[in-house]
Amino acid sequence: MKKWSFLLLFSFVALQAFANDGYKLWLQYYSINNSSYREIFSSVYIEGESSTIDAIKDELARASKGMFDEDVVESSDEGANLRIQLYDQGLRDVIPEDEMNSLSEQGFFIKEINYNGASQVLITAKSQIGLLYGTFRFLQKIQKNEKLPTYGFKDAPTIEHRILNHWDNLDRTVERGYSGFSIWNWHRLPRHIDQQYIDYARANASVGINGTVLTNVNANSLILTPEYLEKVAALAEVFRPYGIKVYLTARFSSPIELGKLETADPLDPEVKKWWADKVEEIYDYIPDFGGFLVKADSEGQPGPHNYKRTQAEGANLLADALKPYNGIVMWRAFVYSEESPEDRAKQAYNEFKPLDGQFRDNVIVQVKNGAIDFQPREPFHSLFGGLEKTPLMMEFQITQEYLGHDTHLAFLAPMYEEILQTDTHAKGEGSTVSKIVSGQLFNHSLSAIAGVSNIGSDRNWTGHHFHQANWFAFGRLAWNPEEKSSNIADDWIKLTFSSNEEFVRPVKDVMLASHEMVVNYMTPLGLHHIMAWDHHYGPGPWVTGKHREDWNSTYYHQASEYGIGFDRTAEGSDALKQYHPELEKQWSDPETTPEKFLLWFHHLPWDYTLENGEILWDGLAKRYQEGVDEARSNVEVWRSLEGFIDAERYEHVLSFLKIQAEEAEWWKNACLLYFQQYSQKPIPEGVEKPEKDLEYYKSIDPKFVPGI
Amino acid sequence: MKKWSFLLLFSFVALQAFANDGYKLWLQYYSINNSSYREIFSSVYIEGESSTIDAIKDELARASKGMFDEDVVESSDEGANLRIQLYDQGLRDVIPEDEMNSLSEQGFFIKEINYNGASQVLITAKSQIGLLYGTFRFLQKIQKNEKLPTYGFKDAPTIEHRILNHWDNLDRTVERGYSGFSIWNWHRLPRHIDQQYIDYARANASVGINGTVLTNVNANSLILTPEYLEKVAALAEVFRPYGIKVYLTARFSSPIELGKLETADPLDPEVKKWWADKVEEIYDYIPDFGGFLVKADSEGQPGPHNYKRTQAEGANLLADALKPYNGIVMWRAFVYSEESPEDRAKQAYNEFKPLDGQFRDNVIVQVKNGAIDFQPREPFHSLFGGLEKTPLMMEFQITQEYLGHDTHLAFLAPMYEEILQTDTHAKGEGSTVSKIVSGQLFNHSLSAIAGVSNIGSDRNWTGHHFHQANWFAFGRLAWNPEEKSSNIADDWIKLTFSSNEEFVRPVKDVMLASHEMVVNYMTPLGLHHIMAWDHHYGPGPWVTGKHREDWNSTYYHQASEYGIGFDRTAEGSDALKQYHPELEKQWSDPETTPEKFLLWFHHLPWDYTLENGEILWDGLAKRYQEGVDEARSNVEVWRSLEGFIDAERYEHVLSFLKIQAEEAEWWKNACLLYFQQYSQKPIPEGVEKPEKDLEYYKSIDPKFVPGI
Repeated sequence: MKKWSFLLLFSFVALQAFANDGYKLWLQYYSINNSSYREIFSSVYIEGESSTIDAIKDELARASKGMFDEDVVESSDEGANLRIQLYDQGLRDVIPEDEMNSLSEQGFFIKEINYNGASQVLITAKSQIGLLYGTFRFLQKIQKNEKLPTYGFKDAPTIEHRILNHWDNLDRTVERGYSGFSIWNWHRLPRHIDQQYIDYARANASVGINGTVLTNVNANSLILTPEYLEKVAALAEVFRPYGIKVYLTARFSSPIELGKLETADPLDPEVKKWWADKVEEIYDYIPDFGGFLVKADSEGQPGPHNYKRTQAEGANLLADALKPYNGIVMWRAFVYSEESPEDRAKQAYNEFKPLDGQFRDNVIVQVKNGAIDFQPREPFHSLFGGLEKTPLMMEFQITQEYLGHDTHLAFLAPMYEEILQTDTHAKGEGSTVSKIVSGQLFNHSLSAIAGVSNIGSDRNWTGHHFHQANWFAFGRLAWNPEEKSSNIADDWIKLTFSSNEEFVRPVKDVMLASHEMVVNYMTPLGLHHIMAWDHHYGPGPWVTGKHREDWNSTYYHQASEYGIGFDRTAEGSDALKQYHPELEKQWSDPETTPEKFLLWFHHLPWDYTLENGEILWDGLAKRYQEGVDEARSNVEVWRSLEGFIDAERYEHVLSFLKIQAEEAEWWKNACLLYFQQYSQKPIPEGVEKPEKDLEYYKSIDPKFVPGI
Repeated sequence: MKKWSFLLLFSFVALQAFANDGYKLWLQYYSINNSSYREIFSSVYIEGESSTIDAIKDELARASKGMFDEDVVESSDEGANLRIQLYDQGLRDVIPEDEMNSLSEQGFFIKEINYNGASQVLITAKSQIGLLYGTFRFLQKIQKNEKLPTYGFKDAPTIEHRILNHWDNLDRTVERGYSGFSIWNWHRLPRHIDQQYIDYARANASVGINGTVLTNVNANSLILTPEYLEKVAALAEVFRPYGIKVYLTARFSSPIELGKLETADPLDPEVKKWWADKVEEIYDYIPDFGGFLVKADSEGQPGPHNYKRTQAEGANLLADALKPYNGIVMWRAFVYSEESPEDRAKQAYNEFKPLDGQFRDNVIVQVKNGAIDFQPREPFHSLFGGLEKTPLMMEFQITQEYLGHDTHLAFLAPMYEEILQTDTHAKGEGSTVSKIVSGQLFNHSLSAIAGVSNIGSDRNWTGHHFHQANWFAFGRLAWNPEEKSSNIADDWIKLTFSSNEEFVRPVKDVMLASHEMVVNYMTPLGLHHIMAWDHHYGPGPWVTGKHREDWNSTYYHQASEYGIGFDRTAEGSDALKQYHPELEKQWSDPETTPEKFLLWFHHLPWDYTLENGEILWDGLAKRYQEGVDEARSNVEVWRSLEGFIDAERYEHVLSFLKIQAEEAEWWKNACLLYFQQYSQKPIPEGVEKPEKDLEYYKSIDPKFVPGI
């Protein structure tokens, strides 16, 4: 007698669903056995009433049902197993006042205490949002079956505004989105609130994300009209209990498009009045509206330059309108000249440096992690440590525009961590990017961090199951920019899949190595911006002849018979001058430049000798091969883990890993064949020779690539 | 002590998930108690091996797990509780050969038999697909807790090809789609097969749908290129075990666009060769490719008219190419003249009638249910009963382009049934449309029926949970065009939600009355095509002045001080002449015309006396009010059913029902205010007066309405 199950294998974990589309993200609340927390929900005391308290109760109910197949039982007795309440005098004996005082508004304290001889877990905070954050953190501990530290633990975010940016258009296409379409069903709003909006809020609150920009930086002014403001207000109402503020992108020309004014000049009184009135209207709809995110004077977007005004004048126009309501302006620094003679890497710094200190106090300048555009690896943006009097916020990209779109596993926490921990030397040693973003280094109270979302209508939100980890990681690093990638990976795997160490360990290894792997098979040794034209899907080192020099791949790699790489030293574009002297010095000399940045800063001959004695060409080729080998190895590692998790997600991930391995090979072959035209050197030993020729790779022309 | 559950109520049914996004459609396999079938899966004998057998096993496993929380146990013993095998001599004693002989290839027989003194359920058929269909039907019986009839039962489809038409574009937008975006992720195909493709196949096979056209009738020739054919082939491979053939829309100008020929003239030898070669290539990729669906010479699509050839010449071009491979051409009759002097309702008949009998035997002409365009109610298309020598297939619309888009509950089985059961009188009494579509009336072996899909990327596939019922209903009527709406509703409710009669009864009443309700609050008494311009969302009886007369609402309602309605009698456009004499006679006189068609065929004064003595204006207004009243009543009915099903679907449906009630009022107000300009009569007693004025309704201009 043969027991059938699904065509696909059942999971080993008892009661685990055999089908799992990944919708529940890291809030699976999968069943656990042998948990010391089993009784925790049988007696729960929660003090207070509000929509946030309701959110807490809802989450506890889900967790209790999922993990222990039990309902939560409320207790009116403060001696319950689990106690959740705002801090008050009555708790002085278990948590000293000065400890709580040092905790910020959004922080929480979790501690196992003794109440009349019985053990109790206490979650307390200074705000209800703090209680919510504490609850989520505690539930994560339960899922991972982790004990609480003896003296409890507290946590609070260091960065104030932790924000997702959705590049979602009103027609529901998502720019640089590879996970389907926008989750905002504008047509059905405001009257229909989809469960997905609530689950979005839950997921974000669970990692401490407290803001969301709903619309694309290539903005549509319609979002500021009443028809849409009431839809936005409906979403804001769903998010509010979860501590998530709503922001919108503001199109600079809105006074003309909506107000029928003749101009959008930031110094024009009618324009100022128009924005003042518009903002007042917005706050009628959304009393806690966060503010505006603005992309201006960039890639065709209207801006102050149209009126010969500065970026500061543009930002201040909006800042003044928002000030009475405590709204902020996040003004993007991604500006590059229409006429473009200068190295793209220098332009934002050149534009903004002279403006340092000229922004209103509710303006924060939003800066991409690097000065080109979200490449697999970039040195940190010179504006970090460049502007001192102006608060800066980090813009990370979570969606993988340049890192393989939907099918490439690349855990980005190591990439984020690398940037955040880089020492800018702006105020001596230890002037890390993280300390600038948290506001600490230059003493700014306004601090923020943004992540360009990878969320869409795909059933698992992010296309690739492992891309959920990057949304999670962004939240974790936004909360604590000093957090370690290894911890983030560990938590995510356990919350999303399984706590079985035989699964966790190899998967964590794969994740932690994956960013470097992608760098290797796409853009090793500091290469950058050599993706296919426009959609950026697949390799395109041959892209040239475009309308702007700095839209050409050839501009960025500068490959010739002599060598390859972009000279950013004093002999070249001298972008290095924008960094502080310690780094300028270190990066000026190829011999002292970390090899990961070599071709970012230097134009070197094909036979330049690398650290390990290999010539540049060989080292380049070998890194491509390393990336491919690792992508293939990941398929085998994953295969060996069949049975540890549900079949549906297992198969889905396997499918994508195989695609990734094929595409890694595509990248390697296309790039090496192309560059070989210039190096005139053979593919080195140990590197697989491409079977097809360069023309084949140049002819690859996929249609309807998502994201554009 | 208070037990919390979700903020939303838990379902009463034990073990039912508290969250249900509706993804599992009518294949919920929810847990049932007190079932006589409880032991059925504890011993199952299945004979044979194939991918279809695997599909059967997979479905049994899902059903067993869901309904009884048990695994299926295979038995090698023919004496198992459940026995599934192809018919052979060994079964002669339990099912006589002549009974099986009369069953078609796709049919099945289910019977409880005696095997060595023990009771056994036997599912048998002449093909493995028949076994699959029988399995699905049997599982439905189990879910509904229905006993098998004593002598068993058999069933077989009467229509040969039962096909979904997806108006999906390659960029994943869906024309007239209100359920998100296309489920075909072309970019990830062919390498990634999503679980949703498998579930799509399961859902369709469960109601006997055996074909799918993957692309929009407004065709993109790229689908015929190798890059896309390999993606199509990957989907065909997923569908094949479930008996579902793949078809594509063929753009008539493909020889020019793809082949770089100078012409697409159907009589040109190079063009013929191009199609022959292209079809050969397609069958290399997909050996059981179904054939082409073609929209030509219609709304800007290229076609034979461009070369002064007939529709038959155009269709035969493709038919000849497909013939060697047994492929078919479904040639759409939705043709109307570019110059349009003639009543739109007459044009397709005028075009195709002279061509009767001129089509190859593998061509079937695809005809919309009515001669205008999928209105809430239309008399049947005069081509049914008009063409005799040419096989005709029905094209129903499942997506609610003119029936409220995503948020209006309208169970369409009664609408389909009404059409199918209409007597055309083509060959005396009893010449129903159903008998024409099944091929029976005019003795055609090639028979087919198409439904324009309402499926998209929304988590529940169809936007509105109740719209799943229309996909289900289409399948049921395609299988058996004589099926009754009441049975379909009953089954769907029980499979999708609950078998509790206290729930089923009121919900069924709502469903069965819903089509008429929508007709009442949108287009009562035969009104048609008065929706908003272009997107068709909401009322637009004022639409006029468009490029073509027959794009104007005013053209269709002809409202004036005199009266309203389109005269299709001999005094008017004489479209009636295209119907057989019995109907021509009945519909020529307003007094004998069924009131549901009154203004479809007649232009009548505002004080024309209706059957019940009311004047036309009053009757019109009262029907609008009736529709609104019923939409409001449905909200209350649904509210009274809270707790019978999971909270998530309950809330979702409630939300949409409220929207529907509001929009029904919108329709009523806009239309009555507009028509009142002409009737110059007061809103009658019993009809709510609109609070806003006509200008308000005319100014409603929603942006980014889905579907276009």
